[in-house]
Amino acid sequence: MSFKEELQNRVNHIEEVISAFLPEETGYQKTVLEAMNYSVMAGGKRLRPMLMEECFKLFGGQGEIIKPFMAALEMIHNYSLVHDDLPAMDNDEYRRGRKTTWTVYGDGMAVLAGDGLLNLAYETAAKGFDMVKDADGYRRMAGAMQILGRKAGVYGMIGGQTADIEAEDGKSLLTEEVLLFIHENKTAALIQAAMMIGAILAGAGEEDVALMERVAYNIGIAFQIQDDILDVTSTTEVLGKPVGSDEKNHKLTYVTLKGLDASRCEVERLSKEAMKILADLQRKEGNIANAFLIELVESLITREK
Amino acid sequence: MSFKEELQNRVNHIEEVISAFLPEETGYQKTVLEAMNYSVMAGGKRLRPMLMEECFKLFGGQGEIIKPFMAALEMIHNYSLVHDDLPAMDNDEYRRGRKTTWTVYGDGMAVLAGDGLLNLAYETAAKGFDMVKDADGYRRMAGAMQILGRKAGVYGMIGGQTADIEAEDGKSLLTEEVLLFIHENKTAALIQAAMMIGAILAGAGEEDVALMERVAYNIGIAFQIQDDILDVTSTTEVLGKPVGSDEKNHKLTYVTLKGLDASRCEVERLSKEAMKILADLQRKEGNIANAFLIELVESLITREK
Repeated sequence: MSFKEELQNRVNHIEEVISAFLPEETGYQKTVLEAMNYSVMAGGKRLRPMLMEECFKLFGGQGEIIKPFMAALEMIHNYSLVHDDLPAMDNDEYRRGRKTTWTVYGDGMAVLAGDGLLNLAYETAAKGFDMVKDADGYRRMAGAMQILGRKAGVYGMIGGQTADIEAEDGKSLLTEEVLLFIHENKTAALIQAAMMIGAILAGAGEEDVALMERVAYNIGIAFQIQDDILDVTSTTEVLGKPVGSDEKNHKLTYVTLKGLDASRCEVERLSKEAMKILADLQRKEGNIANAFLIELVESLITREK
Repeated sequence: MSFKEELQNRVNHIEEVISAFLPEETGYQKTVLEAMNYSVMAGGKRLRPMLMEECFKLFGGQGEIIKPFMAALEMIHNYSLVHDDLPAMDNDEYRRGRKTTWTVYGDGMAVLAGDGLLNLAYETAAKGFDMVKDADGYRRMAGAMQILGRKAGVYGMIGGQTADIEAEDGKSLLTEEVLLFIHENKTAALIQAAMMIGAILAGAGEEDVALMERVAYNIGIAFQIQDDILDVTSTTEVLGKPVGSDEKNHKLTYVTLKGLDASRCEVERLSKEAMKILADLQRKEGNIANAFLIELVESLITREK
């Protein structure tokens, strides 16, 4: 099977997993449930639950415990999109070729749908407690819940969104340090949650969980810089969205700050380090080699669109 | 000490507990942290953490484990106010005599501040895992996390907010059933979370937790009907807010649906049942009589303002 076919299989599998945790559209609160399902089932790469499950496999994880967390993380990713698109935030009417949640359901209902998804994420993750029996199982669950909370919150994704808004409004000077803070938190934090939780729930030790945090940081930052590079070097046909938009919008990016060559070097350095750590982990006793994970990470960083 | 003095002591104590879990206003995400603290420290009755702690004491609870949950529940209550006040929702500029969060920080930042508080609530509650050691402690934590998620979410408070918005927009017919659904979820659900979590963390059994759910339901509904009664029978001077606003806004309430006498009867019935359950629990072996809790519940239901 080609990588592309394997990828599609994974996406189908993940959408089945997520669907099982989505609400039935019934009761007096039906509208908010519809709006939540509308936004989660709007497609997307399902990258975060995919990385989570593949890391779980790498560390020899077995059983169902990973599933509620896969769904929870995708809910968190999607709530952030629903709120980002609001008129009060980016005021976007379309995403992935479909009308955004507020455009269909109104902005009041979209606020509630985002809140509903964020809350349902924790409700869903907490279902994992019903699947464990001993103190060891509870400890893993506790660790996973704590990482989810930290990486999604004001010391993770929401922190990055805040710094991003402030920089865009010109309320703070965009230095390299601020830019990396934004990328680390807005983009890398949920990837870190994915890979760390996959490892923790599989029973990986603290050191290995820290390695996954590092790998995910590199993937997140490299992914983002690659995005900025493609905005300069690609064509609208290949990318499927307008190129040159960063320059047009006077947006400061890693590329405008450091230049194209330095940016390419940084992507290279970050990905080499990530691949080295992953390769070492594959060979470690007790772990299970996961060629798909390696290919997935490579495809994310070296992508041309 | 008078009840009023005891109440004020409790409020001071609770604000100390909450403060310890609020973020330091530092870092590139400083603005969202300021907005979060602004809304949580805006005052209020601190009713939910108070009921939680008093129920914890009633069931003989000891130690610090209740504290992160007291803070978490108050964060959830306050995030819901921050989002409710948004222009996309109720468009309120003042609350408790202060400017609302969006009025001070802008509506984009208020969306993020609400999200930040909701997420921080779960992050904070999950800190409780660091305070338990054995499987029994983990089980209590798990139960408390699950109840928090359910009562705050689309099958709890957010569900009630949704039905309320739909009824106000005239999108659904407001029957007695819908009205009770709204009160049960929008008002009673977080009170249920408070009293049930207090019981669970103290080690109460399933039956007693179910009794607390019942008591809290009664308190929540009686509190709400009493609100509607006072809107008709009180004066602006006593109430500190305009009376007759429900009639002016053509708002359907329990009073407009069933009349003043039937409403008073229902408050009486609900509170008698709640007080009976609480009185029985006070006398149960292993429990610790809590006169303050009884007085607090009585004051909530029979209040004149």
